[in-house]
Amino acid sequence: MYRSRNMSVLVDDFVRKFRVESEFNQFLRKLDNKANIFSTSNAKGIVDEYKNTRFMGTYSGKYEKAVAELIEASDLVLHIGKFEHELNCGAFTFNIPDENLIILSSQYIQIGDKFDESLTLMEVLPALIDRIETIKLSNANVYQAPAKYYQVSETARPRVSSLHQDDLIESLNKNLKEDDVLIVETCSFLFAVPDLTLRRSKLIIQSYWASIGYALPATLGASLALRDFNLPGKVVSIEGDGSAQMSLQELSSMLRYNIDATLIILNNSGYTIERVIMGPYSSYNDINANWQWCELLRTFGDTTKEKSESCKVTTPHELNKLLSDETFINNKKFKLLELVLPMFDIPPKLNAFVRN
Amino acid sequence: MYRSRNMSVLVDDFVRKFRVESEFNQFLRKLDNKANIFSTSNAKGIVDEYKNTRFMGTYSGKYEKAVAELIEASDLVLHIGKFEHELNCGAFTFNIPDENLIILSSQYIQIGDKFDESLTLMEVLPALIDRIETIKLSNANVYQAPAKYYQVSETARPRVSSLHQDDLIESLNKNLKEDDVLIVETCSFLFAVPDLTLRRSKLIIQSYWASIGYALPATLGASLALRDFNLPGKVVSIEGDGSAQMSLQELSSMLRYNIDATLIILNNSGYTIERVIMGPYSSYNDINANWQWCELLRTFGDTTKEKSESCKVTTPHELNKLLSDETFINNKKFKLLELVLPMFDIPPKLNAFVRN
Repeated sequence: MYRSRNMSVLVDDFVRKFRVESEFNQFLRKLDNKANIFSTSNAKGIVDEYKNTRFMGTYSGKYEKAVAELIEASDLVLHIGKFEHELNCGAFTFNIPDENLIILSSQYIQIGDKFDESLTLMEVLPALIDRIETIKLSNANVYQAPAKYYQVSETARPRVSSLHQDDLIESLNKNLKEDDVLIVETCSFLFAVPDLTLRRSKLIIQSYWASIGYALPATLGASLALRDFNLPGKVVSIEGDGSAQMSLQELSSMLRYNIDATLIILNNSGYTIERVIMGPYSSYNDINANWQWCELLRTFGDTTKEKSESCKVTTPHELNKLLSDETFINNKKFKLLELVLPMFDIPPKLNAFVRN
Repeated sequence: MYRSRNMSVLVDDFVRKFRVESEFNQFLRKLDNKANIFSTSNAKGIVDEYKNTRFMGTYSGKYEKAVAELIEASDLVLHIGKFEHELNCGAFTFNIPDENLIILSSQYIQIGDKFDESLTLMEVLPALIDRIETIKLSNANVYQAPAKYYQVSETARPRVSSLHQDDLIESLNKNLKEDDVLIVETCSFLFAVPDLTLRRSKLIIQSYWASIGYALPATLGASLALRDFNLPGKVVSIEGDGSAQMSLQELSSMLRYNIDATLIILNNSGYTIERVIMGPYSSYNDINANWQWCELLRTFGDTTKEKSESCKVTTPHELNKLLSDETFINNKKFKLLELVLPMFDIPPKLNAFVRN
């Protein structure tokens, strides 16, 4: 580390899973902004992407070239909390030569081509915090963080509808708060996660097993956990309409347990993620698309809207208005937002991932 | 068989599962009413209990003493299509001595204490039809079929509510037609099945695995099968409210596939069957009991009631009126009847089964 002239830190999900988040952030402070910081997709929320001026982006291998160029130009990458799986490492297109790589894993330490299985992330991170002399570190190249695709002018992204998934990205960027828990279903929007700009928050995604339908029960569980442990923040979940049909019953449980969370349903008439993968118009990707989403909670018993509020959203303005409305967000009810989206409106990374 | 003076036939479910129903009924005709006929619970519907004057009842071991006394007094019982499992043989209280027993199983033949695994039901039944000389059979004792518990005067069964599960038994007895498919969920009403009086029909119950929640998908599957194979009859399903919450999504599929069936929901505020087994007031047996059952199909998209009709039923009169209304039954729509029942209204056999 002392020899490096252009060091990067790549934070990964096992920092969270093995509960060394606070050690990791102590370590970052110790580096005193001398390294550039990158995150994998699963690890987002560990680093505050707004406050950390050296946060350069979400490393997604070949799927985000501008970010890849920066991290791959480092003479040293510390990959901390490595969790290697297809959707977390750009379909295995991370490209950092072994000689420039130090991996702090939950099971071993790798320096160049040398493995040491007697040590793990959990021992080494505190030792580093303890022993690093910040003064001896060189300041890595200073870059401008690459722009997100949706930050280019709107004219480059013609609208086919009054509301797009991009609008949801921008609204979440603006309105998610520190400590919020963001849950994203294994739906098309999962591929928008790398393009979010998050504060320090909990991100729950399921890209390892990639099982569809987990997000509604996860919303229930996370909300109960926040309440039981009296933790700050609120749960905001992004749910596909197809996925929601898999575990719909949990909507009813939200009423039973008086859950205070926000559920954003992407009403795009079926398994859009599967349509992109195979059979865009095949009946097996269709659903009964006539569900009256905003009536569901009433039908499940909240006839007086005492425990829930449901809103149909068709424009970015409506979406922002709701997500930024403190009275709405703090109404202690279960909030269901039905976003009406075009069937084939998908994050660019989903298309890239399937086509390449 | 020629030596017997008091022969009984006990028809069991593997007659249906191994597709020898028509052979079985040919065999019965060959017996020319000289034997008394009994059925197990799972096998109901194979014999027309109305037309067959020698049908004496559903053998449920010790749980239906009057029926047990008759069959156990036989000097020969032909147990045909044996399917031995707890809920199909009165919790293993069938009590017919080996020396009076011939079993035609799908895997073996047993006569007294002798097994022959080289022959099965499927070979022996046609051979019997072929070779039996009816004239040589003695006429078994002629009995009056024992009365069902609900046939005793109403005063012996005080009403606590305007509608009881007993009323459903009587209404099904009256209104189910030949060839109808009766599907009963693994709910409290499963224990009313032995007390039904059925015509020749298909009975689908799931008492072997006893998994809860299968009946909604089974309703979809059976209805599609009737349509695909152009078979007569209609599907009528009995579904608990707790069980329905397990596979609710299939209600939406009923609309998607234009299913013409009748679903009778027992709205009794939770897992009544489990309450009887353990924890009558425990929260794990509660559900969100505020569901607006009659609104569900509308919420799932049938806003114009073009594909479905939902009715709340609170009296036996309303129930009979609907189930006997040919216009209603033949309206080609999906018909949902919500029966409002007391929480602890259960078939007597459920209580007996759990307590003994």
